[in-house]
Amino acid sequence: MKQIPFYSTRLEEGFWAEKQKTSRNVTVDAVYDRFEETHRFEAMKCDREQHEREGWKPHIFWDSDAAKWIEGAAFTLEYEKNEELENKIDRLVDMMCNSQLEDGYYNAYFNVYETDKRFTVRDNHELYCLGHLIEAAIAYYHATKKDKLLHMVERYVDFVIKTFVCEKSAGFVTPGHEEIELALVKLYRLTGKEKYLELSKFFIDNRGNNDFDIAGHRDWMTAHYPQDHLPVREQTTAEGHSVRAMYLYMAMADLALECKDEALFNACDKIFHNVAEKRMYITGGIGSSHIGEAFTVDYDLKNEEAYTETCATLALSLFCQRMSRIKPLGLYGDIAELAMYNGSISGVSIKGDEFFYENPLTIDLADHDKNHATQSKERYPITQRVKVFDCSCCPPNILRYINSIGDFLYTEDDDTLFVHHYMNSSTEFENKKISQQTNYPSCGKVKLTVMGDYKKIAVRVPSWCKNFDASAPYDIKDGYAYFDMAEIITFDFNIAPRFVVSAPGVHENAGKTALMLGPVVYCVEGVDNEGDIFGLSVNKATSFDLKQDGYFGLPVITVEGCALIDNGNLYSDMDSVKYQERKIKFIPYYGMENRGETDMLVWVPLKV
Amino acid sequence: MKQIPFYSTRLEEGFWAEKQKTSRNVTVDAVYDRFEETHRFEAMKCDREQHEREGWKPHIFWDSDAAKWIEGAAFTLEYEKNEELENKIDRLVDMMCNSQLEDGYYNAYFNVYETDKRFTVRDNHELYCLGHLIEAAIAYYHATKKDKLLHMVERYVDFVIKTFVCEKSAGFVTPGHEEIELALVKLYRLTGKEKYLELSKFFIDNRGNNDFDIAGHRDWMTAHYPQDHLPVREQTTAEGHSVRAMYLYMAMADLALECKDEALFNACDKIFHNVAEKRMYITGGIGSSHIGEAFTVDYDLKNEEAYTETCATLALSLFCQRMSRIKPLGLYGDIAELAMYNGSISGVSIKGDEFFYENPLTIDLADHDKNHATQSKERYPITQRVKVFDCSCCPPNILRYINSIGDFLYTEDDDTLFVHHYMNSSTEFENKKISQQTNYPSCGKVKLTVMGDYKKIAVRVPSWCKNFDASAPYDIKDGYAYFDMAEIITFDFNIAPRFVVSAPGVHENAGKTALMLGPVVYCVEGVDNEGDIFGLSVNKATSFDLKQDGYFGLPVITVEGCALIDNGNLYSDMDSVKYQERKIKFIPYYGMENRGETDMLVWVPLKV
Repeated sequence: MKQIPFYSTRLEEGFWAEKQKTSRNVTVDAVYDRFEETHRFEAMKCDREQHEREGWKPHIFWDSDAAKWIEGAAFTLEYEKNEELENKIDRLVDMMCNSQLEDGYYNAYFNVYETDKRFTVRDNHELYCLGHLIEAAIAYYHATKKDKLLHMVERYVDFVIKTFVCEKSAGFVTPGHEEIELALVKLYRLTGKEKYLELSKFFIDNRGNNDFDIAGHRDWMTAHYPQDHLPVREQTTAEGHSVRAMYLYMAMADLALECKDEALFNACDKIFHNVAEKRMYITGGIGSSHIGEAFTVDYDLKNEEAYTETCATLALSLFCQRMSRIKPLGLYGDIAELAMYNGSISGVSIKGDEFFYENPLTIDLADHDKNHATQSKERYPITQRVKVFDCSCCPPNILRYINSIGDFLYTEDDDTLFVHHYMNSSTEFENKKISQQTNYPSCGKVKLTVMGDYKKIAVRVPSWCKNFDASAPYDIKDGYAYFDMAEIITFDFNIAPRFVVSAPGVHENAGKTALMLGPVVYCVEGVDNEGDIFGLSVNKATSFDLKQDGYFGLPVITVEGCALIDNGNLYSDMDSVKYQERKIKFIPYYGMENRGETDMLVWVPLKV
Repeated sequence: MKQIPFYSTRLEEGFWAEKQKTSRNVTVDAVYDRFEETHRFEAMKCDREQHEREGWKPHIFWDSDAAKWIEGAAFTLEYEKNEELENKIDRLVDMMCNSQLEDGYYNAYFNVYETDKRFTVRDNHELYCLGHLIEAAIAYYHATKKDKLLHMVERYVDFVIKTFVCEKSAGFVTPGHEEIELALVKLYRLTGKEKYLELSKFFIDNRGNNDFDIAGHRDWMTAHYPQDHLPVREQTTAEGHSVRAMYLYMAMADLALECKDEALFNACDKIFHNVAEKRMYITGGIGSSHIGEAFTVDYDLKNEEAYTETCATLALSLFCQRMSRIKPLGLYGDIAELAMYNGSISGVSIKGDEFFYENPLTIDLADHDKNHATQSKERYPITQRVKVFDCSCCPPNILRYINSIGDFLYTEDDDTLFVHHYMNSSTEFENKKISQQTNYPSCGKVKLTVMGDYKKIAVRVPSWCKNFDASAPYDIKDGYAYFDMAEIITFDFNIAPRFVVSAPGVHENAGKTALMLGPVVYCVEGVDNEGDIFGLSVNKATSFDLKQDGYFGLPVITVEGCALIDNGNLYSDMDSVKYQERKIKFIPYYGMENRGETDMLVWVPLKV
């Protein structure tokens, strides 16, 4: 199947249009300014004297920060010309190109420091950085037709082919941190040059063949950490560092499509099911443990300690997007949607200038107070977004993600237009015009207008939808409603709030429920609920009071419940305690921790 | 008030008589054998050549292990002469006395190693060891009239007085680990020598006066760790290492009684309330954190991570016992009873030969599997009792505790006999005879027979008792029913199973309940409940099926509930999930983990 790329689509007034507006008006500059302040951009010059004069030193993966910002910024240029922004990118590109070495190599750290270590230590992120440079180059070229960076990365890739494939003179066979594999497929798609596809295949096929060698590895760094535990086609579970894992699976799916590699697709599908059925938070968050930022074991989904890095969650949705392109299975879209509406965008503040790296499902300030009071160091994620991290991968990642969100909407084959997601938008692609009029996900109604020579239109019906109405007859298959081609189809997912429970394997969520509206997970915050949220329980038979909220962009929902009244005793007979009836206000999870430091809870006990 | 000491009482057929039988038949020898194997006893010889020949070295606090075993063994001699056991003790006493130095000093480590470090490092446990030696000497003297060890410790204490009080030549003012303070009060009570009381007061009065100096202290070792944050009379919360804390509070209560020190009593009472109302597990377990084995902050009572050392819990009950002696407030007895029936005796196996140091309220084997699978090192208490620990304070502590449990029963003043606890027993004290006929806590009926010249008999009515029947009229005051003297009084606490809930401050227990029978906390184990206990919930309106159980010594209780059926989805709409009705079997918490490694849970969700 062919994907209709995001730049063919204009989002119009609605949830994602708003997110993009904030991203273009605020995030792109906010990330730029923080990166500028922290010397991340200046570092691209590779000027050791400057470092010493100014007293700073680049990190081995700063290239990727710069590259992701370029890519995200370039995406914004698809919507609107912005000369100032282009100048900024040009300056960065010039710095990079001017510092590219004779042989094609470029890394802002290794160009200057430990120059004898180039391509010797597997975990040094050089190929990871190059992957992001490739993506940046492609994006910038597409938006502006400027090909300077593209030429630079092509020259660099040639050097990689020489070193890794021809001469085999590098200190390792496959990169410690995946990313270049998926970037090479993009480069192949743009240029048509088979060598890029071949190099991607080379890295994928060699992974897991006992190449595990992370320098200075710690005791938790098993072969699972960089997905080296098995050859990729034999992998069945999501393992190790969750961002690395997802970048690998994305490339595997890309190659499965390009090479019609069924074994690769089957491995991806097994891994996908393992994630969706055993290793994913309800927010689409993945990677439960801060140790190795990693997947752990099935059902290990602790809420307060949840690592669930923003980058991992958005990559999960991108992996699902690739899977949808190979096989129209509704579940891929369902999981993509969970990640899109929850654990990805929770990584950026509503205002667009502050970020979470980790996205926990419970924030209990008392535990932080305990750490403070007792000098104990139990590890909990931070409770307020910050403007920049030491390892600041998430901010530019969410920038490029939101500005290319249209990629999720459509794929097509010879006969059928597949509509995977719902956003108020209009699309022009080749000789076709498609538009959606919808307030999704506030409301489940969609008016789909299609002008094009399709025979069928397939519309994903989310698995949470119990009641699908449509203006035309349809057949359901694998989570998609197939309609005969018609210019206008209207349908309604009848979105209404609902309570969700976890599988019994998720021990911490026993007896608790989460509130959802369509794909959107809700949470309770102290700031809305008289401070103490941990004594609250919701009434299973509640009515739901929805109120559209301009700040969050989706309704806030009030339900009936109660609060256990503190009678001063630590333990009381159940018969003797009293509950106070309470209206409990829920907000969308992605909007958590935007109004000062406050307790937050996704899984709430049910009232007995 | 005067306490009627345990050796005046014979426990007869019943809960505690069984525990004592096991303790005398199994535990006393089991602890002896393990300590013998690990050279703890041989170490008392202080023979460096032997250490080197045999390849081991004593630890600085092995004296306390030996002393606590002597004390516990001596207690068993109060009930039954045992020549073999006496010989074992005599051998230990001889080794100790023969190695006492000229000046009176004795420590099995510092006699031999780092001899220049004696009394220089506050945390080196020398005075802690001496405290236990004093208690052992007193117990052995009382049981056998053999006074060799008593003379030895008196000589040692004289050296301590010289060093700490007269010459002030020690490297610190107050001991890092409390214990000697309470032992000195015992020694004073036995000998009538004021100097011991004075030395105890000296250590208590000087604590908290900026003497904080734990050598090699780590970053979590604040002044709270050894209760040095404030002068003791100004302390209001339970802080720091929970065993040290309790030993301090016991001595404070002892001194409050002996010296009629109201300020000391008031501090004890405030601290008691802080523990009982904010910092205690329902099992009487205290000390939430493994970091510093310490109290943390109010309501920090996580179940799976609970440190709750056996020694701390039993010391809590001993602190309460001392408070009851000063003021007959029912709550002291209630908390003592919680600790007695739950988190103390959970520290020893039903068979009597294996021990827990930590007593968590949840055991989730999946989390241990996760640690194993991912090489992560999240810390959870061990899941099976072991025969000996490196730091093996708990096994001999539970030995001496169970064999002196009769201490809890009675106090008296000029007019009134106070009956604090209920055990099938007969007591002869001075010219009085008291007996209880009861199956407590299986059943709440007690027939109390008292022959003595009391004017009143005061019977503690536990706060969980909602329905107190008695054969004679009474007045209730502060949790005690006051009867006019009568030879026979029968009463009934009408013990029946009940569900208990936590204060809203205990976040982890929201929506969950614990089952209790009188003072006994129950738990659910996988071995009784088809393996998976984390998907269970109990029916609030259940009937209770009690079945006397010879193994546990108390009834097991079956309630109605249900199990969430796993439908294969990680998250499901609440409307769509199905529950299977289930009989859920609970066993007494103290009996947990006696039948192989299994999941265990105290706080169970309520069925909605």
